[in-house]
Amino acid sequence: MDKMFKETGHVNAYFPLFIPKSYLSKEAAHIEGFAKECAVVTHHRLMNDPNGGGLIVDPDAKLEEELIVRPTSETIIWDTYRGWIHSYRDLPLLINQWANVVRWEMRVRLFLRTAEFLWQEGHTAHATKAEAVTETELMQNIYAQFAQEWMAMPVIKGIKTPNERFSGADETYTIEALMQDGKALQAGTSHFLGQNFAKAFDVKFLNENNVEEYVWATSWGVSTRLMGALIMTHSDDDGLVLPPKLAPLQVVIVPVPKTSTEIDFEVDKLMKALKAKGITVKYDTDQKNRPGFKFAEHELNGVPVRVAVGNRDLEKGQFEIARRDTKEKQFVPLEGAAEYIEQLLDAIQDNLYQTALKFRNNHITKVDNFEDFKEVLDGKGGFVAAHWDGTTETEEKIKELTKATIRCIPLDAELEDGKDILTGQPSKKRVLYARAY
Amino acid sequence: MDKMFKETGHVNAYFPLFIPKSYLSKEAAHIEGFAKECAVVTHHRLMNDPNGGGLIVDPDAKLEEELIVRPTSETIIWDTYRGWIHSYRDLPLLINQWANVVRWEMRVRLFLRTAEFLWQEGHTAHATKAEAVTETELMQNIYAQFAQEWMAMPVIKGIKTPNERFSGADETYTIEALMQDGKALQAGTSHFLGQNFAKAFDVKFLNENNVEEYVWATSWGVSTRLMGALIMTHSDDDGLVLPPKLAPLQVVIVPVPKTSTEIDFEVDKLMKALKAKGITVKYDTDQKNRPGFKFAEHELNGVPVRVAVGNRDLEKGQFEIARRDTKEKQFVPLEGAAEYIEQLLDAIQDNLYQTALKFRNNHITKVDNFEDFKEVLDGKGGFVAAHWDGTTETEEKIKELTKATIRCIPLDAELEDGKDILTGQPSKKRVLYARAY
Repeated sequence: MDKMFKETGHVNAYFPLFIPKSYLSKEAAHIEGFAKECAVVTHHRLMNDPNGGGLIVDPDAKLEEELIVRPTSETIIWDTYRGWIHSYRDLPLLINQWANVVRWEMRVRLFLRTAEFLWQEGHTAHATKAEAVTETELMQNIYAQFAQEWMAMPVIKGIKTPNERFSGADETYTIEALMQDGKALQAGTSHFLGQNFAKAFDVKFLNENNVEEYVWATSWGVSTRLMGALIMTHSDDDGLVLPPKLAPLQVVIVPVPKTSTEIDFEVDKLMKALKAKGITVKYDTDQKNRPGFKFAEHELNGVPVRVAVGNRDLEKGQFEIARRDTKEKQFVPLEGAAEYIEQLLDAIQDNLYQTALKFRNNHITKVDNFEDFKEVLDGKGGFVAAHWDGTTETEEKIKELTKATIRCIPLDAELEDGKDILTGQPSKKRVLYARAY
Repeated sequence: MDKMFKETGHVNAYFPLFIPKSYLSKEAAHIEGFAKECAVVTHHRLMNDPNGGGLIVDPDAKLEEELIVRPTSETIIWDTYRGWIHSYRDLPLLINQWANVVRWEMRVRLFLRTAEFLWQEGHTAHATKAEAVTETELMQNIYAQFAQEWMAMPVIKGIKTPNERFSGADETYTIEALMQDGKALQAGTSHFLGQNFAKAFDVKFLNENNVEEYVWATSWGVSTRLMGALIMTHSDDDGLVLPPKLAPLQVVIVPVPKTSTEIDFEVDKLMKALKAKGITVKYDTDQKNRPGFKFAEHELNGVPVRVAVGNRDLEKGQFEIARRDTKEKQFVPLEGAAEYIEQLLDAIQDNLYQTALKFRNNHITKVDNFEDFKEVLDGKGGFVAAHWDGTTETEEKIKELTKATIRCIPLDAELEDGKDILTGQPSKKRVLYARAY
């Protein structure tokens, strides 16, 4: 993903972890959404308790202004941009940061919702509204491309309703995925911030006509939440199933039951051939565990291709090659095994995507009344394509009644006359509802 | 560097930013060295002041136990390792983390000493002392190799005196560099931690004979301080000088005074040839600034090679190619220019290293009495190789008198009878003193 950012002109930078409390108050909508549940640093020293109570916070080391551990970095970055942007010559500014952020969460769910998480956040500054909108869309497309081509995870591109927008944004573009349990997952968002942060942090530039204007902004991010998305899109009851293009280890070779000179010789040839193709491979010669244990362990870890080889296989001039996704095994001649594996990795990548796409497409259900809406949510699950009257009131009422939210208004939604499933008010296009993580 | 870690069997992982206060108290030496000046999180929520005073810390959101923003992660990692290590089968554990850390600093110096900094910290667990010592030495060697081969920065490998050791270590291995102003810089450290953290966090394993033992540990790190080291080793009065192997942009091409169809055609050919060799190149067609401005800017940014080309150059069938390190310019025929540049980048890399090595070697001065010692420190600067009686008292006295510290006891120090320069007590080898960042 970093490569995709760089190919589209972005550079990496790093901004501070700590944001002075006063910065958070500057953009009114932003503070409401973000600054409340956060980690607050109030002191900068510990000391030994003079009464023998162990390590305590030194009361003399209280900070004059509290520091907030960044929940997102718009405020500190736009405070910095004020010093960097003076003229149209300084624009656009296309910066990405890989960082940890903290949002205090009461209900934690591994990979999806944790107090601290890792992400990248892009923060760009532009001279015109049109350029900023184009950037917002570009990044949504890059996220969708990464999800589909690398993670083998189909996504729907859309925009968020005002109610689900990022706090401080004029428009939020999203990619929405569907997990195997029928729940939706917001996988990445790209925000058009208008001039909101430029106004809050007083960031102006002189345009080519020497007229002062406020800067236009975007921000966009994906996080370790994508790890959760990957796991829940492809895994099965035997463990992880990893798309070959992202698997840290693509092929594992297990001697059955243990190594021999002949096996080592053939494995060495295969490994060299695989490495020459840029395929990662490990020869699991660990003698502490038996082959059956190793097979199960590599399945659990999602290694896409497993090669097993014993003396009898060698006598027949073959390897046994198993693919993780379908569990199919095949005997393959020693000669040409590397080419077979190379193609198999591509086939697995494609199969994972096609399987997930079929599942997702089978789980987009059009409904035209509230009874059907509830029935689909409680039964089949997945996305429900329904008409919406465009009001936050209806959206919130439906959430209250069904726990389903509007995941997005798909970019490719067709114009179609319809009626809101709850209120009967007129609507021009369907939106996608779902219960979501 | 990440690649070097992986090639030697390490894997990346990520541990939490916040460490519960009680963890820090568990290793007695460690707490003395680290836990005092740190950022303390005491609350997890802000609120609007009911009296209209803006955003304030919510007094109801006080944490039961304060959280410390990690100054280093031994404590939280060893608390985790207790759950992961039970048997010799679980060892060795070779884990690296890329992370930010915070050590509250009163005197800040960009890249060298900042409250927050970025680093990697390796934390390994072993079944035997010998294996842990071997790991500690391996990582010192990897750091030295990276510094010399990639940063073009010569370093001296040595061990720290007990007084300068990492808090909680039995031995600290270091690489020490010399900056152009004659001050030394500790560039990376690798610590043999003995069983100190295993004992503090009760991490035991059953060995092959089914006997319970404490685990042996190492930790090792380098930080964004290396950015400071790079800058201070090679830069000149015109700005950065970057070693080609680390320069994000290796070649910049500037049209003089502006582009033309003919220039674009030749530049395109050159760029393709360079990219095919894996060389990063940018064609600076920005029309907002003139060539002279661009030349100065690319020099400031340390781009190793600059190509200038105008119509007159093309008539003569040549590019003008300038190297950043020596500022030499050369006219080079269009044909073969890519090969010329490829070799020039290697030559620059080598020249930077040789120049720095020569400077460093000229700044290691043997002295045998305290008067000469002070004279070298105040005049020529650099490392001073002197005899030391091995006591912390003498080391501290010399620091007090001269601000010089023992940077290391070089691994290759020759055995030689001598007398401590301050106390006259007997000594068996010279140590390296310097004033340091």
